[in-house]
Amino acid sequence: MLIISPSFTIEEELNGEQILKKIERAGRTCYKSEDRIGPDTAHAFVKRVVESAHESVLEHEKITVRFICDRGVSHELVRHRIASFSQESTRYCNYSKEKYGSEITVIKPCFWQEGSPAWERWRQACEAAEQAYFDLLKLGASPEQARAVLPNSVKTEIVVTANLREWRHILRLRISPSAHPQIRELMIPLLKELQQRISVVFDDIKVNE
Amino acid sequence: MLIISPSFTIEEELNGEQILKKIERAGRTCYKSEDRIGPDTAHAFVKRVVESAHESVLEHEKITVRFICDRGVSHELVRHRIASFSQESTRYCNYSKEKYGSEITVIKPCFWQEGSPAWERWRQACEAAEQAYFDLLKLGASPEQARAVLPNSVKTEIVVTANLREWRHILRLRISPSAHPQIRELMIPLLKELQQRISVVFDDIKVNE
Amino acid sequence: MLIISPSFTIEEELNGEQILKKIERAGRTCYKSEDRIGPDTAHAFVKRVVESAHESVLEHEKITVRFICDRGVSHELVRHRIASFSQESTRYCNYSKEKYGSEITVIKPCFWQEGSPAWERWRQACEAAEQAYFDLLKLGASPEQARAVLPNSVKTEIVVTANLREWRHILRLRISPSAHPQIRELMIPLLKELQQRISVVFDDIKVNE
Amino acid sequence: MLIISPSFTIEEELNGEQILKKIERAGRTCYKSEDRIGPDTAHAFVKRVVESAHESVLEHEKITVRFICDRGVSHELVRHRIASFSQESTRYCNYSKEKYGSEITVIKPCFWQEGSPAWERWRQACEAAEQAYFDLLKLGASPEQARAVLPNSVKTEIVVTANLREWRHILRLRISPSAHPQIRELMIPLLKELQQRISVVFDDIKVNE
Repeated sequence: MLIISPSFTIEEELNGEQILKKIERAGRTCYKSEDRIGPDTAHAFVKRVVESAHESVLEHEKITVRFICDRGVSHELVRHRIASFSQESTRYCNYSKEKYGSEITVIKPCFWQEGSPAWERWRQACEAAEQAYFDLLKLGASPEQARAVLPNSVKTEIVVTANLREWRHILRLRISPSAHPQIRELMIPLLKELQQRISVVFDDIKVNE
Repeated sequence: MLIISPSFTIEEELNGEQILKKIERAGRTCYKSEDRIGPDTAHAFVKRVVESAHESVLEHEKITVRFICDRGVSHELVRHRIASFSQESTRYCNYSKEKYGSEITVIKPCFWQEGSPAWERWRQACEAAEQAYFDLLKLGASPEQARAVLPNSVKTEIVVTANLREWRHILRLRISPSAHPQIRELMIPLLKELQQRISVVFDDIKVNE
Repeated sequence: MLIISPSFTIEEELNGEQILKKIERAGRTCYKSEDRIGPDTAHAFVKRVVESAHESVLEHEKITVRFICDRGVSHELVRHRIASFSQESTRYCNYSKEKYGSEITVIKPCFWQEGSPAWERWRQACEAAEQAYFDLLKLGASPEQARAVLPNSVKTEIVVTANLREWRHILRLRISPSAHPQIRELMIPLLKELQQRISVVFDDIKVNE
Repeated sequence: MLIISPSFTIEEELNGEQILKKIERAGRTCYKSEDRIGPDTAHAFVKRVVESAHESVLEHEKITVRFICDRGVSHELVRHRIASFSQESTRYCNYSKEKYGSEITVIKPCFWQEGSPAWERWRQACEAAEQAYFDLLKLGASPEQARAVLPNSVKTEIVVTANLREWRHILRLRISPSAHPQIRELMIPLLKELQQRISVVFDDIKVNE
């Protein structure tokens, strides 16, 4: 059994300047104020959009993010309905095959210290589940049947595409102190990276740590 | 550990006649042909709507269904984005409490015969997971942490609301021979019940068993 | 040419008590607290839902409303994407036919007093447009071609279905002083009627007149 | 009054090769078959996706298109709900101002030959509407009031963003012989341009002229 940390990758070049220019071009259509577009106007335009909550123009640009997380976190991700998903399927992946490393991969829980009693109990339970999964395959079960015993901690990979307005919504919900710790663990660094790369679109979202 | 079969309940009175009349009223708005509404015209009107794929008028009526299923099936259900969901939360439910029967409930897999080697291996794995869940709670874990070891088979309850057009889409996808056997196990009888109660809306959907 | 006032009709019985009970049943699924359902608990449950912004459970019930309004207002209505629409089609309705009264119907603008210079100029322009529409039909144009000259004021009929959460969103946006006066003219009385019929769901929305 | 032809502009670089590679990367996540990605595999992968109707992976890439069309066409465009829109507002644009050319712009109908009786009747009606609009502004009306007399032919500009799967759906519906001639007039050349630029995604959509 392999234990890994959760992670994410932004699957875009995210040319911030170009994104802001495209949002400005779309947004100025409403007022036919394209004559005011200058080399340096996009940043201020988008800032006003965010401040005035005229967020619909942010929908014209999208970001695709790949997450490696457990099934609990992925279940929360797919509850966002204004987004597109492609997810590793436990129906089609047979983790006993060499291609998958002939082992189960699980996601390290952020709330237990490695070696602590809870951690050890968790690790042992995941290993028992891995053994049951392999046994079921040997008894003739297909992966889509044997998955019945896979634990919530099992690693999954999911590609999520959403527009900038929706990412603002997702991030606000999922960095909140009332969100699950394992989704916060991913969303807080994602927000920070987005704030660095297209700051004006995400700067007003504050993390309450 | 409690082992139960999956099930569903339609949470509506589903007065078929009234639903068809409301769809006819909405649909005839497009052509301003309300003058053709008679005591017996709704059935034929909706039949034409379904046959001609002018399905948007079917969106004006909805059905709410409560499913009791495992987490694998619920993950597939929530992938339908034109629907609304309220789901039992493994973050807030503490299955060790008396209120929840002080035990884990799991869903009986339809593909293994009770008592067969695969069934026994599965049952044993679920019981081991239950024990790990209880042990983690005793070690001080919260339910949203201890859920890490819960197996895919764990029972969940989810209320799904969708309009008639979307239910047609969901049913067609999920009764297909290429769908997961456990979602077919619920969707085929749901389709049959809907075909009995508002037949004209669902009659053209055929099960390939 | 016929001049009429805009209007709306709620196309539901809207049994407030039953709606609240269904929302409570769906909402308590999340916490498995159905044991707390009593004869008088639904109102307080939904009140908490609204106050705590856990609005997703409001999505399980829907309201269908029929609007008679001008094409400008209907264009704003159909911009709401989490809703379903059936609208009178200027492609298929031939207003020169006896069935449609052999005349154009237009919606009375709320911002001009009957008989004022602006009103008279508007009325005259709409009559000229009606004449042009009839002339084009006589010259062999089809309704979907002749509609080219129909004015924004032309009456349309549109059936709108949305869930309670989305109606809350639509109403908040469209009763705002910054909304178009003709959509406010419909949405403010709609809100008031909904506040009477299922008060707990809409009571917190305040009109700023 | 200015009469112009409708038009569209694709607001993207649309690097076909890069788009296909990104779709392949997302799509192969489902089967964890990223090991099969080679320099020339993306085209064949996307071809299989389209042929097997596993279209959800096409949602990870989007196209933004700017349309210049009449209000009738824009009303049909905004009925597509899985898309984002920014549209020129008749509430905020004052066409009597120099900035807007101090005149109304209308879209040339494709079904009447220039100079024909229908064309002349249409042109005259639009000019009368323009005069009424200007008169109302002089009488003190605001643009959002005076728009009441603007004809369906009035030009609008609308920026539409949708993902590739939804564009496939929009194009199939709107190039159909049963679609309005003025939306076909835009969608058929848009389809042809997209077929040239990312052919594998749109090639199977056939125009029935």
